[in-house]
Amino acid sequence: METPLEKALTTMVTTFHKYSGREGSKLTLYNVQTTISLGGGKCCGKKMKETSIDDLMKSLDKNSDQEIDFKEYSVFLTTLCMAYNDFFLEDSQ
Amino acid sequence: METPLEKALTTMVTTFHKYSGREGSKLTLYNVQTTISLGGGKCCGKKMKETSIDDLMKSLDKNSDQEIDFKEYSVFLTTLCMAYNDFFLEDSQ
Repeated sequence: METPLEKALTTMVTTFHKYSGREGSKLTLYNVQTTISLGGGKCCGKKMKETSIDDLMKSLDKNSDQEIDFKEYSVFLTTLCMAYNDFFLEDSQ
Repeated sequence: METPLEKALTTMVTTFHKYSGREGSKLTLYNVQTTISLGGGKCCGKKMKETSIDDLMKSLDKNSDQEIDFKEYSVFLTTLCMAYNDFFLEDSQ
């Protein structure tokens, strides 16, 4: 049986492939709007500003091709995960 | 309502804090065995060799203090996530 952490990792992979290839390359996310749709637009119930997401996406899309491959997506999730952790620590103080 | 991706991120944070602080610092994972308990010991149903996990943990524990902080843990998850993605791509071919 899958542990919660294994299930979380599976969700991350399947979510990427659910949205990748809708536009552009089959193995990339096409644009910022798609990533907002992924659920990255909120953090601990708080809606992020579109400009903030836009800036974040620009910083991840190193070659500025408006596409995010899996590696770039993983870095994005790590950043989000660390933001979630900061909220968690603030909340538990 | 949480999206699956938000739920996955929450799981990653809460799983870390479920195991952190059992030994050593409150905000770190103490050793390899703890990380295996996290569910990182399997990948897509396949059990990883303990030596492989040990090598991975050593590579993440930069200061060799036998503890993994949240940032190191995030890098570990990113590595696992990319391994999951490789399995996903192989499986779908």
